Amino acid sequence: SMNPDLASERQTASFSVEKLTARLDGGAEHTRIRRAVVEAIECDPVFSRENQYFQSQNERYEAAVRKAVHLQKKMHEMGWTEDGPEFKYIYRALSGDIAFLLHRIFMRSISVLGSKQQIAKWIPLATQYQLIGSYAQTELGHGTYLQGLETTAVFDITTQEFILNTPKISAMKWWPGDMGRSATHTVVFAQLYVHGKCYGVHPFIVQIRSLQDHSLCPGITAGDIGPKMNFEHVDNGYLMLQNVRVPRENMLNKFCEVQPDGTYARWGSQKINYFTMTTVRISLISDEAVIPLMKACTIAIRYSVVRRQSKLKPGEQEAKILDYQTQQEKLLPQLAAAYAFHFINNYLQELFDKVYREIQRKKFDMLPELHAFSSGFKAMVTQYCTSAVAICLQACGGHGYSLLSGLPSLYTKIVASCIYEGENTILLLQTARFLIKCFMAASTGQPVPPSVTYLAAVKPGKCPAKNKLDFLSPDVYTEAYQHMAARLISSTAAKLQDLIQSGVKKTDAWNQCTVQLVQAAKAHCHYITVKNFAETVEKLETKAGIQKIMKHLCDLFALHGIFSNGGVFLHDGYVSGAQMDMVTASYLDLLAVIRKDAVPLVDAFDFTDKSLNSALGSYDGQVYQRLYEWAQKSPTNKQMSPAYERYLKPLLHNTLSKL
Amino acid sequence: SMNPDLASERQTASFSVEKLTARLDGGAEHTRIRRAVVEAIECDPVFSRENQYFQSQNERYEAAVRKAVHLQKKMHEMGWTEDGPEFKYIYRALSGDIAFLLHRIFMRSISVLGSKQQIAKWIPLATQYQLIGSYAQTELGHGTYLQGLETTAVFDITTQEFILNTPKISAMKWWPGDMGRSATHTVVFAQLYVHGKCYGVHPFIVQIRSLQDHSLCPGITAGDIGPKMNFEHVDNGYLMLQNVRVPRENMLNKFCEVQPDGTYARWGSQKINYFTMTTVRISLISDEAVIPLMKACTIAIRYSVVRRQSKLKPGEQEAKILDYQTQQEKLLPQLAAAYAFHFINNYLQELFDKVYREIQRKKFDMLPELHAFSSGFKAMVTQYCTSAVAICLQACGGHGYSLLSGLPSLYTKIVASCIYEGENTILLLQTARFLIKCFMAASTGQPVPPSVTYLAAVKPGKCPAKNKLDFLSPDVYTEAYQHMAARLISSTAAKLQDLIQSGVKKTDAWNQCTVQLVQAAKAHCHYITVKNFAETVEKLETKAGIQKIMKHLCDLFALHGIFSNGGVFLHDGYVSGAQMDMVTASYLDLLAVIRKDAVPLVDAFDFTDKSLNSALGSYDGQVYQRLYEWAQKSPTNKQMSPAYERYLKPLLHNTLSKL
Repeated sequence: SMNPDLASERQTASFSVEKLTARLDGGAEHTRIRRAVVEAIECDPVFSRENQYFQSQNERYEAAVRKAVHLQKKMHEMGWTEDGPEFKYIYRALSGDIAFLLHRIFMRSISVLGSKQQIAKWIPLATQYQLIGSYAQTELGHGTYLQGLETTAVFDITTQEFILNTPKISAMKWWPGDMGRSATHTVVFAQLYVHGKCYGVHPFIVQIRSLQDHSLCPGITAGDIGPKMNFEHVDNGYLMLQNVRVPRENMLNKFCEVQPDGTYARWGSQKINYFTMTTVRISLISDEAVIPLMKACTIAIRYSVVRRQSKLKPGEQEAKILDYQTQQEKLLPQLAAAYAFHFINNYLQELFDKVYREIQRKKFDMLPELHAFSSGFKAMVTQYCTSAVAICLQACGGHGYSLLSGLPSLYTKIVASCIYEGENTILLLQTARFLIKCFMAASTGQPVPPSVTYLAAVKPGKCPAKNKLDFLSPDVYTEAYQHMAARLISSTAAKLQDLIQSGVKKTDAWNQCTVQLVQAAKAHCHYITVKNFAETVEKLETKAGIQKIMKHLCDLFALHGIFSNGGVFLHDGYVSGAQMDMVTASYLDLLAVIRKDAVPLVDAFDFTDKSLNSALGSYDGQVYQRLYEWAQKSPTNKQMSPAYERYLKPLLHNTLSKL
Repeated sequence: SMNPDLASERQTASFSVEKLTARLDGGAEHTRIRRAVVEAIECDPVFSRENQYFQSQNERYEAAVRKAVHLQKKMHEMGWTEDGPEFKYIYRALSGDIAFLLHRIFMRSISVLGSKQQIAKWIPLATQYQLIGSYAQTELGHGTYLQGLETTAVFDITTQEFILNTPKISAMKWWPGDMGRSATHTVVFAQLYVHGKCYGVHPFIVQIRSLQDHSLCPGITAGDIGPKMNFEHVDNGYLMLQNVRVPRENMLNKFCEVQPDGTYARWGSQKINYFTMTTVRISLISDEAVIPLMKACTIAIRYSVVRRQSKLKPGEQEAKILDYQTQQEKLLPQLAAAYAFHFINNYLQELFDKVYREIQRKKFDMLPELHAFSSGFKAMVTQYCTSAVAICLQACGGHGYSLLSGLPSLYTKIVASCIYEGENTILLLQTARFLIKCFMAASTGQPVPPSVTYLAAVKPGKCPAKNKLDFLSPDVYTEAYQHMAARLISSTAAKLQDLIQSGVKKTDAWNQCTVQLVQAAKAHCHYITVKNFAETVEKLETKAGIQKIMKHLCDLFALHGIFSNGGVFLHDGYVSGAQMDMVTASYLDLLAVIRKDAVPLVDAFDFTDKSLNSALGSYDGQVYQRLYEWAQKSPTNKQMSPAYERYLKPLLHNTLSKL
């Protein structure tokens, strides 16, 4: 039975939830396919996440392996293929709790970096799981700076082998997924030496465990790096190599080769490698940041209409906590952000597809823009979503702090997305480098990509808004964001130039500007997100109430950004103090408007109870009943703790001294 | 052997670390006592936290009980008493990983709320651990709003007993520590009914488990509420009562009583109850927020001078990551905040002692101010420290994400401090209520407490700074904070008045202002923190370089706040855009200055390696060696996973179909 406090929220929806869901999925047919995949996965007990919050690291690893193995069968049984329309929904349906994700990266790196012969040899073995692959790049002492890797591969001309070594502890491979306990093979990145000369980092296929009994191969030391904040299901591993020999053919040689006589040859373009990194960054935005935020919003908002606490007016029933302005201010901007980032992800996908088509025609012109955008948005979206999930958790008070709410594990997982696949600060500085370059080009009249032409037109000005309603005009706020981003980029470029002209070395000058460069890159991404949201709303169908509610959310996202970052808008007087008061007034008005549709807006994300796995967020809103039922399943309630006989009893019976 | 990259940082300290440590402790004698306590605890293997990151909830609970029981012996053995100077260091030395903390609250509530007879009966039993107590206030459906509690206690005149009941699931007691598995008794808060009339919430002593065999008493259902984000060592519990009878004498009756004939009598002042809450809030600021932040800073800053990544200049060695401006900008403001909050904690302690002396003279005038301050600072400091620990974690990249860094558990624990002992938003609104009241009083010329007299003098004005060096004057920035806080409080008061005058009901008007009220309360606390830091620096001894470095930190804390919250300073033109650029310039200059003393500044916190329990933060900086050693201890490396025989082998040997 549905909690009446939740049911009443659904009766007053101003729009069609089903139509909005279809819009989010990219059409009703996609919704149908997604639901079919989710249904097939969730009705299969092998994929259950029911006991997840009670499991140890060991148990979670075993479950992830079991699921990965079972998924092979399931796909065969369901007729799903890696190229089919169902594939992209499988990972989402499993909430990512599955092993062998690095096996895919192993295969992809061979496909991209390997010769035809290498592909022909290894890919079928990997496809049929006659080996389990991993990808060993990061070292204990080396992450973002690839050139600093210390693992060595020395060519031995007499045996036609490479000899791989971990020369010191900081050179140990550290973090590769699937490597701690599962993998039999891995791609090791190592400094190539031939005749004593170093040729830089290259990839080598190395077997690390026996295919017979899984014991470690000679010269190999490997294991699990131990407990992490989350990802207990992944066996992130370490790897040391002591005079491990692999044949010459095991260096991936699509682009370069060591010939039998030791000659080093290099050919072709490696630009496509950047494209691979870009692909990963874009794909993680949705799977690892936006969807978790959507889940957190669903849980926190459903809970906030079921939880009643204190009174808004004396004599009345206790109020739903979502009726408090402070609770609205915590949650509704995060909901708006989830939509904003869903739409920016669509934008990035379209840009990606366009660049991909160009690349197939051997045109690489758009790669720098795509690289800068995917880096900047990966950083901005993961950081924003991480903070947003933390807000959702805290907004649920004590019950949000229980693992059973689902919110702690969403947080402890999403926070990693700020670090992996490019640490966010490093990525934002790459975006900033692109923006500064474009700004310089634009100011000297050279052509720049369309997305940054606005940098050519930096000029002083004033926001034209005269009252609070003017700030509900997308032109008004988009223009404000554009002005602000352009100002931050141009003023940082000016500081950089000034420093260099005053005699500071370029590299030092850059470092002295990095705090502001990061700020400028974020401002650019924020501007593009607002602009894209406004343009998306413009194109939505007006019927079924969808455009109207999306317009409200877009306004909220934009005004929340101005309200929260007032300094950068007020700085040069583009927005005045009086106008900032109008922004605040409109922003607070919007909270009350969107609050009415808050539950339908999270219902539209269409998460099943099983995929939320939250005692607070279920569709029926029976929060207290579920918390109690789930708590009883905890292993701590299965038996009396040995602590009683050992400590409590002697303490209470005053027989401690005999201990 | 000390990592040379860390050793070099210590050779150039601009001040005496030992002298600063003594200053933080409140004198060299306190440092001596603290170190003696830490030494005694850490050399005792029973108190070891060595395997903490590998333990299950069950194991951590058992360890906490073992430590609590052992502590009784230890105190006896060492001659430590609850009134002695050592006592306050014990909890810190144990890093809070100990059971029976609620047993203390049980005792305190009897001491405060119980009659002389009740104290004489129960306190000796509790002191000698002939029972284990808990404190059952919060319910599944009720936290902050005490009047909403649903548990009932009906007086039965025929048997002279109270009959306690949990009328529905939301009335179940939920969260009390030590109750899930340990406690034999608890203080239950319930709605008192006599002759069908409700007299509101009252405290009752209830036995829940047998003193013989620890089985649950008749009518009692109790257990553990299951896994949480942290606090695995605490058995937070649930409790249901079905017609549980306790004698009339079990209602704590210092202030009110049900007489044998059912007459309800009440006497005396209950104001002292607020004082108890205030005590807890003030004491947690240091133990649960500031000390954890100091630990996080120690770990992240030591790691950041040992970790080298990428190059600042081509051809050079890879740079220490703390030499990057972006890394300084992440960590150094958190370090400055740790000092700022240490000093504000001293300020609160002094205020507390003053009020306590007044109360002993039966004067309660200062209680509202103390309540408002303790609420606001509890909220502001816990929120700030939580964000700061998250920044420290992310600033350490992948290694920060490993549990072995110690940072994840610091985060998952500190985040709870935003929720318990008063949810932060609720607390800030209480502070705001006090501030609005004082502002109203001040504007009509009535007397207000000295700490808020600044509200009487809200006037327009301009910051007098003419260049970036002017912003290194405490007068200049303290004035800016004062102006900003006064403006936010006065403008919110004006909005509230306007709404009420336009006919909006008082309660609705209040709700419509709460976002701004929270902002105003934070601004007030931020102002007082800056002012107190500046005044503290003023009073420091000038020798040994301590005043100079503390002045830098105070400047950094203040300017970071202006830089990060530019909007509220620019809003009315008190600070101009050009001045904001000066703030930014001085702020960035300070980062480079403080960076030189960063390691000595965290060394001064004087944490032992055992108390940090971090592979990244040890005094010798041997990060990689320690990560590797610790990872090998992980249970995941103790044996081959059963997943191999069950899943991996059949997969690799292609015998899956036989499964």
